[in-house]
Amino acid sequence: MQTEQQASQEKETGRLEAFSDGVFAVAITLLALDLKVPLVQPNGTARELSDALLRQWPSYVAFATSFLTVLIMWLNHHLVFKLVGKTSMRLMLANGYLLMMTTVVPFTTELFSSYFSLPGARVAAAAYAGAFVLISIGYLWVWHAVKHGQLFRSGAPAETIDRIDRNYRYGTPMYVLATAGAAISPYVTLAICTALWLFWAFTATEC
Amino acid sequence: MQTEQQASQEKETGRLEAFSDGVFAVAITLLALDLKVPLVQPNGTARELSDALLRQWPSYVAFATSFLTVLIMWLNHHLVFKLVGKTSMRLMLANGYLLMMTTVVPFTTELFSSYFSLPGARVAAAAYAGAFVLISIGYLWVWHAVKHGQLFRSGAPAETIDRIDRNYRYGTPMYVLATAGAAISPYVTLAICTALWLFWAFTATEC
Amino acid sequence: MQTEQQASQEKETGRLEAFSDGVFAVAITLLALDLKVPLVQPNGTARELSDALLRQWPSYVAFATSFLTVLIMWLNHHLVFKLVGKTSMRLMLANGYLLMMTTVVPFTTELFSSYFSLPGARVAAAAYAGAFVLISIGYLWVWHAVKHGQLFRSGAPAETIDRIDRNYRYGTPMYVLATAGAAISPYVTLAICTALWLFWAFTATEC
Amino acid sequence: MQTEQQASQEKETGRLEAFSDGVFAVAITLLALDLKVPLVQPNGTARELSDALLRQWPSYVAFATSFLTVLIMWLNHHLVFKLVGKTSMRLMLANGYLLMMTTVVPFTTELFSSYFSLPGARVAAAAYAGAFVLISIGYLWVWHAVKHGQLFRSGAPAETIDRIDRNYRYGTPMYVLATAGAAISPYVTLAICTALWLFWAFTATEC
Repeated sequence: MQTEQQASQEKETGRLEAFSDGVFAVAITLLALDLKVPLVQPNGTARELSDALLRQWPSYVAFATSFLTVLIMWLNHHLVFKLVGKTSMRLMLANGYLLMMTTVVPFTTELFSSYFSLPGARVAAAAYAGAFVLISIGYLWVWHAVKHGQLFRSGAPAETIDRIDRNYRYGTPMYVLATAGAAISPYVTLAICTALWLFWAFTATEC
Repeated sequence: MQTEQQASQEKETGRLEAFSDGVFAVAITLLALDLKVPLVQPNGTARELSDALLRQWPSYVAFATSFLTVLIMWLNHHLVFKLVGKTSMRLMLANGYLLMMTTVVPFTTELFSSYFSLPGARVAAAAYAGAFVLISIGYLWVWHAVKHGQLFRSGAPAETIDRIDRNYRYGTPMYVLATAGAAISPYVTLAICTALWLFWAFTATEC
Repeated sequence: MQTEQQASQEKETGRLEAFSDGVFAVAITLLALDLKVPLVQPNGTARELSDALLRQWPSYVAFATSFLTVLIMWLNHHLVFKLVGKTSMRLMLANGYLLMMTTVVPFTTELFSSYFSLPGARVAAAAYAGAFVLISIGYLWVWHAVKHGQLFRSGAPAETIDRIDRNYRYGTPMYVLATAGAAISPYVTLAICTALWLFWAFTATEC
Repeated sequence: MQTEQQASQEKETGRLEAFSDGVFAVAITLLALDLKVPLVQPNGTARELSDALLRQWPSYVAFATSFLTVLIMWLNHHLVFKLVGKTSMRLMLANGYLLMMTTVVPFTTELFSSYFSLPGARVAAAAYAGAFVLISIGYLWVWHAVKHGQLFRSGAPAETIDRIDRNYRYGTPMYVLATAGAAISPYVTLAICTALWLFWAFTATEC
């Protein structure tokens, strides 16, 4: 049976989750604002419209990539908060920082996709991966706040806690590598980020 | 009586629903951003303003159509999740894909309405219906995840399950037809999509 | 004591309320996007910036008016749904229509404020009040769906029901009057709409 | 044990909180829309892109500052509503006013950051701090509505109530000072606002 205090603490946690979900939901929906109807001359042919639509492919890739990235970040956020039974001010601040960096992802993704085949590609790649360095630090901070504040709900499976513990260790160094790799080629950054992206999706699936 | 595990699973489902509702709510509200106050010369007459407002009718039609489309998609999403009692990672991914495609509807609707009476109409119609092909696959994927993962809540009416089963079978082929029909005329696409749109509204009403 | 069915119906109603609240929250927050930082020459004086900020007063008025209008609409929506214990498809459609018209308010408010002191003022005033005619019909539709579908929750106070019944009768004809009054002067429209606005706020306060 | 009336009042409060959280979540997420991908000539070098990205630093500062400001406002809002067990129309109006002013913060922050090193800096600083004067009045109004309406939930800790009581007394006069200080230098405004910002964060942490 739950005590009244536990119920109140779970309500607190619920409100933090709901606020975070709100930010994730808005951020993920705003991505579609970057899909623009192309302007073609009124007397332009159907061919001109289909060409204009196809030429926009980088914005479709940026949209789908950002959407899936934010979705996987939401799944992982979800995964952590499933283990949490109460909150602390430290957790709220760490979570606030993580949400802030999450809303930056559409900007860096658009930057990367806009400059991918231009001379600025390496700079854009470094900014893209750099944002993920800051995000992975955000996840570490949230996780640290949960672990050291003993905020786990009763019955949180030790196995899941261990797995998250293990997985989070790799995040930051790998994203630092992806950032440094931009000096070689934007493809290095893309390869490492995509691999990690599959890793987080897979991680979330396992739990 | 509910067990504690059921309660926890229902909470999980509730969070997935709430996130989805957030995305639907934001997507549906952003549609109104396309209604723009027309610019008329400061010394322009009242007649010029009313003309300018009336000339914008395609944006009003696009707004109302998109709103109703997303609303009916929400109703149908709702209908499925009323039957669901627990989640799985597969359901979360399928639902994520469905939400992604949902946020694309305003873009394709605006495209269709902008080019409806221009040479590009067939291309725009194909893109419009093509997005619904991808959306109908999303609903099938969600439904498949629910059925094969045995995620139904206890007491989900078999009749509703059967009806959804039957209805979803028609979605994808009909939208493929609407996409192909764009080669003949955008009116063919419009007719099939509107008929289906009434069908989904009617379907949701019955349940 | 609540039965399980009642609990399930209340959950349904809760989800409809939450979706509506999401739309209201997004619509009301988007209003601030119309507040733009004025562009002044880099070597412009402080006086030029304060003048530019003051010249924008119509956008501040439009912002505050729209915000308060949507807020009062939310309060009245809230008032109705406090009485509701279950939903129907008709209620969901009526509510969807009402939400659609709600998201139009920022557009008509901006239109009215942009043209208030220009020749187009009467046209803009008619559009502004015309939107409220459609909104008042939305409230009637929702109310009708609740009353005729017997969707009241047990214990809904008859007094509140009677008062809403009485108040809603005046909405549509008064807004039709405000729309027609635009032919005389935009001030007539403004006066009637403001009076009604105070009336709805007062109404919501009483309950 | 809770009575049924208490449960209903808590649900009411929950809906008000959820609506407020929605507004905060949307407002905080919209901030990222001001991060724009810089346009560089297609044949521009990587150096040009990194320069363009660095030149945008005021928009990064404005983004981070606004985000943290709205986050701390949310934490404080949260802090007050944790003590609240029922609502009143006065609280709803006060809260509505507070939310309205909250959505203005991104505008005034962008204004301040855009003009910080230009001649208009003092005007922008006064507008920035002036908005916080109006916001601090909003918090006082909400707090007054809670205290004088006896809306505290049973068991709200007297200590927290006293602390909020004490802290809120300083808000308005200090922000008036920050507004007046803009006449001397925008740095005075910045210093006072940052100090208060740390104070509110610290306050929220203590409770």
